[in-house]
Amino acid sequence: MSIAHTPEPPYTAVIFTSVRTAADGGYATMARRMEELAAEQPGYLGHESAREEVGITVSYWTDDAAARAWKAVAEHVIAQDRGRTLWYADYQVRVARVERSYGPDGPR
Amino acid sequence: MSIAHTPEPPYTAVIFTSVRTAADGGYATMARRMEELAAEQPGYLGHESAREEVGITVSYWTDDAAARAWKAVAEHVIAQDRGRTLWYADYQVRVARVERSYGPDGPR
Repeated sequence: MSIAHTPEPPYTAVIFTSVRTAADGGYATMARRMEELAAEQPGYLGHESAREEVGITVSYWTDDAAARAWKAVAEHVIAQDRGRTLWYADYQVRVARVERSYGPDGPR
Repeated sequence: MSIAHTPEPPYTAVIFTSVRTAADGGYATMARRMEELAAEQPGYLGHESAREEVGITVSYWTDDAAARAWKAVAEHVIAQDRGRTLWYADYQVRVARVERSYGPDGPR
């Protein structure tokens, strides 16, 4: 995992923050599969992920429509349901429009 | 650390993604101090943070002006400079406007 190479803003960021339960139930396999599946979707730009007490996954999309379409992908819908009922003690999804970006090499 | 209790959108999210160098140089002390100092700033709403291969800190602000003001706080300016020259092999800051939010208890 490295920092996502996103284009010049504007684009859409989906900030998914979660606290896990103790339940496993295939979580790691699902998480990997969702990363692969997301990367195949139209409008996917990249993602970044880390977990300590809280897990944060930020996925980047060309626009809000692409982010909404990913939410509705059937296999992802099933994963979301299992997340709500089994894997996550708490979570929050925040959909945001990236307006500016900077780093050592400028925007990306 | 738990999931931040943010208000109904819209508000501003600053997504700071970084890869650390091997250098220590007081990093943990600075990181704690910056969390405390950020929380004292006008317009601060909360933050979430996790680090594995990549570190992700998302701080939430009432608006872009509050996020810009935090970037300009003197002690934070010094920390940013040390980050660029010592602590971070790579980093990216993305400033975004949160447009919608949902979780088990709705927006927050």
